[in-house]
Amino acid sequence: MQNFTFHNPTRILFGKGREDEVGAVAREYGSRALVHFGGDYLRKNGLLERIEASLSAAGIEFVEYDGVVPNPRLSTVKEGIRLCRENRLDFVLAIGGGSAIDSSKAIAAGACMDGDVWDCFTGKAQVEKALPIGVVLTIPASGSESSKACIITKDEGSQKRMCSSPHILPKFAILDPETTYTLPAYQTAAGCCDIMSHLMERYFTQTEQVDFTDRLLEGALRTMLVTAPRVLAEPDNYDYRAEVMFVGNVAHNDLLGMGREEDWACHDIEHELSALYDVTHGAGLTVITPAWMKYVYKQNLPRFVQFAVRVMDVDLAFDQPEAIALEGIHRLEAFFRSLGMPTSFADLKIPADRIPEMARRALDGRPYAGHFAHLNEEDIAAIYRLAL
Amino acid sequence: MQNFTFHNPTRILFGKGREDEVGAVAREYGSRALVHFGGDYLRKNGLLERIEASLSAAGIEFVEYDGVVPNPRLSTVKEGIRLCRENRLDFVLAIGGGSAIDSSKAIAAGACMDGDVWDCFTGKAQVEKALPIGVVLTIPASGSESSKACIITKDEGSQKRMCSSPHILPKFAILDPETTYTLPAYQTAAGCCDIMSHLMERYFTQTEQVDFTDRLLEGALRTMLVTAPRVLAEPDNYDYRAEVMFVGNVAHNDLLGMGREEDWACHDIEHELSALYDVTHGAGLTVITPAWMKYVYKQNLPRFVQFAVRVMDVDLAFDQPEAIALEGIHRLEAFFRSLGMPTSFADLKIPADRIPEMARRALDGRPYAGHFAHLNEEDIAAIYRLAL
Repeated sequence: MQNFTFHNPTRILFGKGREDEVGAVAREYGSRALVHFGGDYLRKNGLLERIEASLSAAGIEFVEYDGVVPNPRLSTVKEGIRLCRENRLDFVLAIGGGSAIDSSKAIAAGACMDGDVWDCFTGKAQVEKALPIGVVLTIPASGSESSKACIITKDEGSQKRMCSSPHILPKFAILDPETTYTLPAYQTAAGCCDIMSHLMERYFTQTEQVDFTDRLLEGALRTMLVTAPRVLAEPDNYDYRAEVMFVGNVAHNDLLGMGREEDWACHDIEHELSALYDVTHGAGLTVITPAWMKYVYKQNLPRFVQFAVRVMDVDLAFDQPEAIALEGIHRLEAFFRSLGMPTSFADLKIPADRIPEMARRALDGRPYAGHFAHLNEEDIAAIYRLAL
Repeated sequence: MQNFTFHNPTRILFGKGREDEVGAVAREYGSRALVHFGGDYLRKNGLLERIEASLSAAGIEFVEYDGVVPNPRLSTVKEGIRLCRENRLDFVLAIGGGSAIDSSKAIAAGACMDGDVWDCFTGKAQVEKALPIGVVLTIPASGSESSKACIITKDEGSQKRMCSSPHILPKFAILDPETTYTLPAYQTAAGCCDIMSHLMERYFTQTEQVDFTDRLLEGALRTMLVTAPRVLAEPDNYDYRAEVMFVGNVAHNDLLGMGREEDWACHDIEHELSALYDVTHGAGLTVITPAWMKYVYKQNLPRFVQFAVRVMDVDLAFDQPEAIALEGIHRLEAFFRSLGMPTSFADLKIPADRIPEMARRALDGRPYAGHFAHLNEEDIAAIYRLAL
């Protein structure tokens, strides 16, 4: 086990009707809020109205900013920063999923700096300060509601970059499973697979003697294997929606990766699909992850055997470790397909012609991606081709 | 799943040598510290010296208070409060296990109130404020390093009472597995069993549809089943000590009980053994827990079957649920014995003559203890007798 520091002070308010508490909780952090979200569904289902009523009842003035798009854009962020400055806002409330939250995080940081917020995504500057951020989560997937990370895409050139800072960790997040009942099946499935990816990026490690976090990750993955099909079959089952929402939060609050080197190559490799073809992140991950597994499993066969046996329920036959590992990967791929998710470029209708460019962009100047296996440009291109 | 709020801002610094950071971290919270601990081992192994050097290097003045005893006493707390006031101290650093931490918590609260701190343990007063608390953990067991709870025994009458408040949640806790190498075997085993009890008090619930936390708890329990014997066989194996210390922390940081009604009857029933006979808490728990299980398993047979199958690896034969449940309890009891722990009053050399008094005291005026099963005085006496 490696040394680690764990510190996650985000307050999680989980359960039915908790969004009615948003005003009372937000009042601890500010009195003039930017309410940032995207899409009409929040107006149609009445959630926006209830949230704004709660803010008003707590004496919080607010400016609505309805502009979030999937894979959130720097231009959206800049407009949000302008609104915060112009209206002297002191708090940002994100309503939605990872896109709303990440857009809000970048706005909160940018509103407190003189320079260009994009510099925090290129390494030229650090986030020194940010407006306090609150979240009402309606799409469980990204885990961004209690993470320090934020991913933004620059409009020109579609560069997708991450920034990480404790200053942009949300102060609180409200998770009401009922708000996710109307999430379309495809988005629900993509969210479940994104959550599973956050677990697997941590699970596949070369760090030895990490039995406790192994077992927590395995338990979380097994919960998703059982629950994802159930929630698709019964989208308004409270308990199934609650399990997904809770796992999604814990999967990415840092705890389950403590003491172990995490991988994150699949995320790096997938981001080019999202950036160039605007693929839903979770869908890109179900294409990339099995291909990545097939490419790297020999780098630590016992770990892939453990995954196959403990997570995918493959029968153990000690003399055939490779067959067990491959069966585990095969079952995961079949599981993704059973949820209606793509597992190939063909499924996504994406051509192969930009693979060399994507491999170069995925590395973005670094010598390699990933930690379980160090992947250079050639390796990444090979993984894309395995996923054709 | 029930609604819940999860908020645990304690910063965990985990790993080799982390205690050398204590001064730098403590400096964020105070400049005049009470350093509270008990016993000579910290002087002998050099840890106290290293901690105090780190405090001095950070410019923190401190007063040593070497007075912690197991099942910490109110008289010790009052002397600590006097020291804080007399020396105008603004921070309390606990070094040790649950006793040092709980004593420190009560001191930190008492130093900030005009009245008697015992009132916070009887419900007459609330903790409104406390000095900030830091912890260097040397005995993994209680989980008190990131919990809001504190248990103190009043000297006269041996009343053992709990107080809970977010104000006494430690600001940080330093967990270096190497500091636990010299922990005697019996205390190591008792700590492991206390940790397992914290997991089981959460596991045995009547709340339905709590699959995710079930699996996290099962994973944590299985880690302990594998690791506890290993750590007794190899007390200076870093990785085994690390697993125990990490599980001990997570077992009691609240996360694993979210969304489910917890039980805590075994703790209530055990506390009388500790209070009247000064039994090590973990040892009292290995006596009480199997007896409690035998008394209550019929209240939710499927849950005990799940425990037997998923945690204790009992083969599932669907037509014999009761046999499976009992075999799970039997295996847990055998596991406790394999660690050298007592499983009966006889093992502890405790007589049966005070059982009625203990049953009354365990309830302490409440109509019942526990939530998985509601236990009245008669039930509790029956559980004590099952443990003779």
